[in-house]
Amino acid sequence: MSKIKENDTIILYDKAKEKKRLINLAVTKGRLSIETGYIELNSLIGMEYGSIVKTQMEYEYIVLPINLVDFIMKKLNRLTQIVYPKDAAYILLKLDVKPGDTVIESGVGSGAMSCVFAQYVGKEGRVISYEIREEFIKNATSNITKMGFGDRITIKHRDIALGFDEKDVDSLFLDVREPWLYIKQAYDALKIGSMLGILVPTTNQIEETLKELNLFSFIDIEVSELLLRKYKPVPGRLRPQDRMGAHTAFMIFARKI
Amino acid sequence: MSKIKENDTIILYDKAKEKKRLINLAVTKGRLSIETGYIELNSLIGMEYGSIVKTQMEYEYIVLPINLVDFIMKKLNRLTQIVYPKDAAYILLKLDVKPGDTVIESGVGSGAMSCVFAQYVGKEGRVISYEIREEFIKNATSNITKMGFGDRITIKHRDIALGFDEKDVDSLFLDVREPWLYIKQAYDALKIGSMLGILVPTTNQIEETLKELNLFSFIDIEVSELLLRKYKPVPGRLRPQDRMGAHTAFMIFARKI
Amino acid sequence: MSKIKENDTIILYDKAKEKKRLINLAVTKGRLSIETGYIELNSLIGMEYGSIVKTQMEYEYIVLPINLVDFIMKKLNRLTQIVYPKDAAYILLKLDVKPGDTVIESGVGSGAMSCVFAQYVGKEGRVISYEIREEFIKNATSNITKMGFGDRITIKHRDIALGFDEKDVDSLFLDVREPWLYIKQAYDALKIGSMLGILVPTTNQIEETLKELNLFSFIDIEVSELLLRKYKPVPGRLRPQDRMGAHTAFMIFARKI
Amino acid sequence: MSKIKENDTIILYDKAKEKKRLINLAVTKGRLSIETGYIELNSLIGMEYGSIVKTQMEYEYIVLPINLVDFIMKKLNRLTQIVYPKDAAYILLKLDVKPGDTVIESGVGSGAMSCVFAQYVGKEGRVISYEIREEFIKNATSNITKMGFGDRITIKHRDIALGFDEKDVDSLFLDVREPWLYIKQAYDALKIGSMLGILVPTTNQIEETLKELNLFSFIDIEVSELLLRKYKPVPGRLRPQDRMGAHTAFMIFARKI
Repeated sequence: MSKIKENDTIILYDKAKEKKRLINLAVTKGRLSIETGYIELNSLIGMEYGSIVKTQMEYEYIVLPINLVDFIMKKLNRLTQIVYPKDAAYILLKLDVKPGDTVIESGVGSGAMSCVFAQYVGKEGRVISYEIREEFIKNATSNITKMGFGDRITIKHRDIALGFDEKDVDSLFLDVREPWLYIKQAYDALKIGSMLGILVPTTNQIEETLKELNLFSFIDIEVSELLLRKYKPVPGRLRPQDRMGAHTAFMIFARKI
Repeated sequence: MSKIKENDTIILYDKAKEKKRLINLAVTKGRLSIETGYIELNSLIGMEYGSIVKTQMEYEYIVLPINLVDFIMKKLNRLTQIVYPKDAAYILLKLDVKPGDTVIESGVGSGAMSCVFAQYVGKEGRVISYEIREEFIKNATSNITKMGFGDRITIKHRDIALGFDEKDVDSLFLDVREPWLYIKQAYDALKIGSMLGILVPTTNQIEETLKELNLFSFIDIEVSELLLRKYKPVPGRLRPQDRMGAHTAFMIFARKI
Repeated sequence: MSKIKENDTIILYDKAKEKKRLINLAVTKGRLSIETGYIELNSLIGMEYGSIVKTQMEYEYIVLPINLVDFIMKKLNRLTQIVYPKDAAYILLKLDVKPGDTVIESGVGSGAMSCVFAQYVGKEGRVISYEIREEFIKNATSNITKMGFGDRITIKHRDIALGFDEKDVDSLFLDVREPWLYIKQAYDALKIGSMLGILVPTTNQIEETLKELNLFSFIDIEVSELLLRKYKPVPGRLRPQDRMGAHTAFMIFARKI
Repeated sequence: MSKIKENDTIILYDKAKEKKRLINLAVTKGRLSIETGYIELNSLIGMEYGSIVKTQMEYEYIVLPINLVDFIMKKLNRLTQIVYPKDAAYILLKLDVKPGDTVIESGVGSGAMSCVFAQYVGKEGRVISYEIREEFIKNATSNITKMGFGDRITIKHRDIALGFDEKDVDSLFLDVREPWLYIKQAYDALKIGSMLGILVPTTNQIEETLKELNLFSFIDIEVSELLLRKYKPVPGRLRPQDRMGAHTAFMIFARKI
């Protein structure tokens, strides 16, 4: 079992109500007051994950470690459309991100994709995120800090029309309104054989992007979308849920040669 | 840029024919004879990826680094149905696999999922794969070696009805015919707060698995499937491809408390 | 152009607000009071569809003919889950319904599928609908009357376990909780070469139904589902809508020999 | 039961091999020679559908009535992409086609959609199909004749840029490469309150069509696509088929006011 450390983000799981509460111990300190009483957060440090903690009113919570998907879907503060886990995971694998890699992304958005990249490049890896809107940088920084990835991600307040500082990066991801304006810059930053990933919501953006990609030495161009369908987990009455997301975004991939 | 090392698996990319040939330098040594002539493989060691090599007939190839998705889809030798990249990526993220983690899977199948786990747990992580069929172990070992993940993956020739040796593992993945028979064993091996993932092709298997999951302390039970739709990347005539995979497998997730 | 007749169901289309109001002239008589004033409904009889009518306050409406899909989606009073147009249309075609046919269905539900069958069997055709719950009969009758199909549809208040009165019917449709209990009855009622259609929401129901179908002389067994994805009709920003129905029902088809 | 008539198209169903053979009695006359012997086709006239007929070698077939979906999917001679049953059915219902209606379509293609319209407008209805390519007219006429719909469908060899002869038609369907060039002509032919349907394979065509539709008085504009997923009908191992159609066409609907 692993122990709770000083700056962890933890989940207090209320088993009776089947509800989760996320607490970032680096940010929230001292006494935590909640509807069922209070908990001295210092007392949690060094405990095993999975332990039960009680408020002074004897109300019980299980302390669970944070999980990246939970964080993205439930706790990340959104100023923008986020990259959803189904897409984020596929992008991660298609871009062949590995522990130790250097990955560039732009823009930072709300930081969801940044956190996914950061988790997988690991402590030795680097995520460099270019963003021009200051309010997004501020919000993303806050989200990234809550997940504990502050030391793996560098946000640069810069217009990517001017190009990326880094060369020979392991992969590059564009999630901007007009990605076709930055294909040259992306091409220049990537090392040979590495992957470019692009996310766009409309078919018009796919069009413009494909036209520009065709002007550079890219192979393995793929345009795809993922549909996630969930089922009601009820034995004896198994059936898909009534509604589902019909569209998050289209993904475009290309490999520089 | 990174250099080609002695035991790398490389791609020889034929730009004229837009075709890839994968070569595992740890396995194929000396002179490589192909339809366009021959290449002395020793001469590649130390070259930069992205370089052009020529056969003695002056036919040109670009040397590219191997990419995990390419390997799984095109070069892995299949004795079994494999876990497809769209599903493998989502499982990876839902199981919250991180560099340094210890992950259990069963069975090893053809080793596709093993390689995905291995790439993301990194050099400090461990993948322990339980498999009872010797011919699968032999084939998967060969595939894993080609990807260079032999030192991160341990295959155990064992019936998982007897339980897993490891305790407090970071995540566990079952891809077996009757996963409901091993829920207790999986529960016992997982640490509190960690994720169980299960892959099954039929709705009947979902039924049986859900019934058994309900007997243990799991939360966040999710049953889902992913549909990947690709588009023809032709500007001016953008449309989905005519055919797509309609089904690979259903995925079941649960979190131990 | 066709003229408005005494018992038509009409649409008053408010062009300014892009809103429709359905009026059944067989039911609503005399002066219609609405938020924009009143209209004497008698004055509409004999007018051309497409004409503009005004309230005494000079507020304008276009009078449009009713459309079956509009009626089902917007005006039908629902006591039950309905058969959605995407499924209803496919069932209609798969059952090879033709003008003049005799079609059996059970149950009547809210009458949506009954109206679809009635529209296509035409004035010479017959729809016979078996239903055991009186409140459904009452509600469906009201819906059917509003669409003007009362003379084509006969509702029988009967338990179909006792069998259907009709023999050699052109097609038969089951939308009941346990269709596998009535396969023999359905088989007996169908003529050779004709189609049976079944609608069920869960995979468990598919299972039971298939087992029973296999005991009778049916060919061409098909199990399918239809996913309808709509797009935002905005040139320049074309993209699918954010959400969609993930599941209405599974459809099962079989042909008696 | 219904009897086999002189010009019917019938199915000879080989129960042993589970195979269908379609015979158009209006076209094929006299002795039918097949691999299992021969059958005198005259002897079938007046028989009940569902009867068993034997070759002189005593090989048995069941005589079944033709079914429109079977005909479209298996026997229609295709010179063009056809409108698939899933789409054809939805178009039929969305266009609110009724027995007795007059429907215009262009082009005739291979006649699949023409046959669907013809079946549902019935004997009192009319389908008028505009087509400029003579080889399509010839092939579609042959297909339409095989289905017995020759007397309900009129094919006009005409460029629709010149407009449609008919006014106040009940619905109109465009399946041409550049539908946006004919929106005015379609608008002029439709009666007020009736539906226009358009089929296009690419997103670029949706774009152009939407721009043009916005110039006319249409309401209820809908852009949609239907995905049909079939299941392997095997109790105990229920699962979707491995592959499916990913795309046939996008459908656009609009209502004239």
